[in-house]
Amino acid sequence: MVTIKDIAARLGISVSTVSKGLSGASDISDELRQMVLDTAVEMGYQSRKMKKDENKKLCLFIENMDYETSNQFGYDIILGFKQAAFREGWTVTVVPVTLAFQLEEKYDTYMLKNGFSGGFLVGYALHDEWMRQLNFTSIPTVLFDNYIKKNPHVCYVGTDNFEGIEIAIDHLYQLGHKRIAFLNGSLYSMVSEQRYQAFLDNMKEHELEIDEDLIAHGYYVADSAKYHVPNFLAAGATAILCGNDLIASGVITECQQRGFRIPDDISVVGFDDLPISSYLDPPLTTVRQDRIELGKCGFAALNNLIHHVSVSKTLLRPQLITRSSTAPCKRQPEL
Amino acid sequence: MVTIKDIAARLGISVSTVSKGLSGASDISDELRQMVLDTAVEMGYQSRKMKKDENKKLCLFIENMDYETSNQFGYDIILGFKQAAFREGWTVTVVPVTLAFQLEEKYDTYMLKNGFSGGFLVGYALHDEWMRQLNFTSIPTVLFDNYIKKNPHVCYVGTDNFEGIEIAIDHLYQLGHKRIAFLNGSLYSMVSEQRYQAFLDNMKEHELEIDEDLIAHGYYVADSAKYHVPNFLAAGATAILCGNDLIASGVITECQQRGFRIPDDISVVGFDDLPISSYLDPPLTTVRQDRIELGKCGFAALNNLIHHVSVSKTLLRPQLITRSSTAPCKRQPEL
Repeated sequence: MVTIKDIAARLGISVSTVSKGLSGASDISDELRQMVLDTAVEMGYQSRKMKKDENKKLCLFIENMDYETSNQFGYDIILGFKQAAFREGWTVTVVPVTLAFQLEEKYDTYMLKNGFSGGFLVGYALHDEWMRQLNFTSIPTVLFDNYIKKNPHVCYVGTDNFEGIEIAIDHLYQLGHKRIAFLNGSLYSMVSEQRYQAFLDNMKEHELEIDEDLIAHGYYVADSAKYHVPNFLAAGATAILCGNDLIASGVITECQQRGFRIPDDISVVGFDDLPISSYLDPPLTTVRQDRIELGKCGFAALNNLIHHVSVSKTLLRPQLITRSSTAPCKRQPEL
Repeated sequence: MVTIKDIAARLGISVSTVSKGLSGASDISDELRQMVLDTAVEMGYQSRKMKKDENKKLCLFIENMDYETSNQFGYDIILGFKQAAFREGWTVTVVPVTLAFQLEEKYDTYMLKNGFSGGFLVGYALHDEWMRQLNFTSIPTVLFDNYIKKNPHVCYVGTDNFEGIEIAIDHLYQLGHKRIAFLNGSLYSMVSEQRYQAFLDNMKEHELEIDEDLIAHGYYVADSAKYHVPNFLAAGATAILCGNDLIASGVITECQQRGFRIPDDISVVGFDDLPISSYLDPPLTTVRQDRIELGKCGFAALNNLIHHVSVSKTLLRPQLITRSSTAPCKRQPEL
């Protein structure tokens, strides 16, 4: 077991300085504190805080995602995670992070100095600074919707996006749609990349034409629809598959404002099954992600990693929820 | 809740006949019993046995795999599964199955009439009859090393084979090997297919030549080596990656009998890390699968399915165990 003395010996500094570095005391320089923390992590030091059973602390970091109210995507994920953690006697601290925060604070040292035994990261983008650092972390860490290769301390939890897009396209295909447009979420997200690939694969699978004019990347917000729906309509889309329910709500509004009826003229499919989906006009057909269970699976995976079981990936099945925004295709595409 | 009366009404037969069909009584015809069981499954009937807490029964089916002693691949998987199940108050029955058995008995009806709430299937081949049936089962079922698309009642548990092959090839590449042969396990196995694809991908990744003379499918037994090692040696292999440790043990023997020293002339890498790996001469470098934890994850996934959480996939990380059967490459390939 690595002690404070070992760290002091390695760095050639006093035990009290190491102690100050680990506790975040302000009377040593930032550089020295960072060095102490880096070395402690490298040597596998565990603070007494981390070891004590009455101090079982996990941290949930959240970025690029709304989570304050039950209508928002992140809310149930956090709730599920906290519920599962609570049963096993862990306390969970939720920390919203920015890119700037990630550049200021190293992930490992943040975890160590705050006495967290594991982290659950939600909403990170592929180019985030902490994503790079996670290739080398030794802190048990679960990523929602992101994957790190070869690091046995990191696990990916999410919904199977390939199957999610597949069941949505199957549904539209069975309704006779051929001109299916895809308004995806943000670029630089693993989830968007998977769904885009799944869209291409499944259109090919059904021998449907892939038309670049019917594919666009936006953001995971309703406003995305404004820029892309007019082009989709002009290009003869009869159905629009959306990266999430917020985009779908924007798509419905945009179509209706241009005189297209949902679902008579255009079918619309969302992704997530947020609570708003059933209150839209018409109620939205969408691909459900079970967010409470995703949160619980996130905790189960983290608990495994903390107990040295190297889970790499846990995926949940998506489920198609059929409501009134999809209907048989009436128009035949022009040849 | 579906009752025996409902089944009787649907089939237009008496309640006592349904009851006989469900209990496996011998005084009704086989056809009628099968019809009762099929209908019961279709209607989602649960027997009192299945509902009673004191009768929490799971079934572990095993095929194409040795599991009687702790040296054999299946042993720890079963042990881990039983251990995890026991803690939650489940009893586990282990049933070895053959292809003939699968043709005789339908999976769903076997589970129902024996009062099993869930199944864990280990060692199945892609063309097995039950694999086909699992596309439509409504019985919570976990497959070790097999995957069923779109059925929310079925989950896949295994080791990440892509990463397993990747870390093995990385290791050989870093030792300077370029002529890497691959003696895979049986055809018609999802695992073999994944490892074969991973081999091709990772050889390309390292810009190493893929030579058909250095690739073969055998069986997951030591004897496989006899047929393929002479060709690999003739084709100038400096390293041989094997589908499992048994194949690797055969490869070592075969090389040594032909005057090739391990690891001086040929490096050998196994897969699994069976107990024998460390007793081979030389001790085997291999890709470890944590079989106890795989069994435990199998139970965790099944427990999720039984509680209506649709886990689709749980993968564990492989780990490279470096022993003495691999060494830096001394020979340069001829140009």
